Amino acid sequence: MNRGRLFLISGPSGSGKDTVLKGVFKKCPEIGFSISSITRPMREGEIEGEKYNFISREKFEDMIKNDELLEHNIYVGNYYGTPKAPVDKCLNEGRDMIVEVDVNGARQIRKKVKDAVSIFIMPPSLLVLKERLSGRGTENEEAVNERITEALREIAVASDYDYIVVNDILEDAVNNVISIIKADRFKTDRQSKLINDVLNN
Amino acid sequence: MNRGRLFLISGPSGSGKDTVLKGVFKKCPEIGFSISSITRPMREGEIEGEKYNFISREKFEDMIKNDELLEHNIYVGNYYGTPKAPVDKCLNEGRDMIVEVDVNGARQIRKKVKDAVSIFIMPPSLLVLKERLSGRGTENEEAVNERITEALREIAVASDYDYIVVNDILEDAVNNVISIIKADRFKTDRQSKLINDVLNN
Repeated sequence: MNRGRLFLISGPSGSGKDTVLKGVFKKCPEIGFSISSITRPMREGEIEGEKYNFISREKFEDMIKNDELLEHNIYVGNYYGTPKAPVDKCLNEGRDMIVEVDVNGARQIRKKVKDAVSIFIMPPSLLVLKERLSGRGTENEEAVNERITEALREIAVASDYDYIVVNDILEDAVNNVISIIKADRFKTDRQSKLINDVLNN
Repeated sequence: MNRGRLFLISGPSGSGKDTVLKGVFKKCPEIGFSISSITRPMREGEIEGEKYNFISREKFEDMIKNDELLEHNIYVGNYYGTPKAPVDKCLNEGRDMIVEVDVNGARQIRKKVKDAVSIFIMPPSLLVLKERLSGRGTENEEAVNERITEALREIAVASDYDYIVVNDILEDAVNNVISIIKADRFKTDRQSKLINDVLNN
């Protein structure tokens, strides 16, 4: 069996990345999704093992020491990381895997997984990005401005990604990400045994 | 405007490559198709400018001399080649272009057009390939065997291509080639101005 592909998907706050990914997984339930390990306390409404595994600081530092993470970051004093084992398991089963990760995490994983394919989800314009971030209405102006600054910093390195998909019309963005994932399955490096199989049948 | 992409599509006799391409152009009429220049006499049913431009030997040799061809071959004493100018025109208009070419031509073009994307259309098995080639019933056994030998020679270098698409069920093969072409439009190298456009709007 051919190994699956690791897809790194990033996008700034306001790109609608989470909604795009929801659409991708709904249409392609065969794709694996990496659950991050984090050390911050669980928030209301969060479920252990849904999007995050909530683990202790000690456990996390052990994982760092034992090289059990594909990438990790510290954010507001808490660790966030992508454990290696579930990714390997999924890829070894021949299934594609999506890791949702920020630009810093993507940079770390690219160095370790040379054949990872990275996709940047882009807002259609700065104007729309600002609207989306202010529109949430849950944060004060300062917090919104911080998010915008951070988004601009992420957009500035979008060209490090293999693909850029603009999320203007959600359905198009979902289909475009799926077309990238599906097309990848025909790449020659994933079909190493195909030529022999054809010749021997 | 971003430049279009050049797609090189090869496949041995019996791969059904022509039928696959017909399906691709029907569904994606925006894609350009390169018309080969050839020096063999026109056959019954052929139309000048449909699949080939029939030109004189002298004209062809001038094109070689003036470096006006992306690739050329001699086959049974006649020249076959892909003129550069129409390919450049199509790509400069931002349209994708398909060049149907044998493995030898693909090798020549890859050297000149570094960012060309190549797709190999593969029969599902040697058995099916043999059936398809014998099934035509228009050729004697010797001619069929020659075609099989040539097909095997082409399949042996399929791994030089970026993608391999098996043509078992025609509709799937058509859709899979289209997904490769569509996904390619989101590659970062084709969206050089996107980041600035987003930031300035």
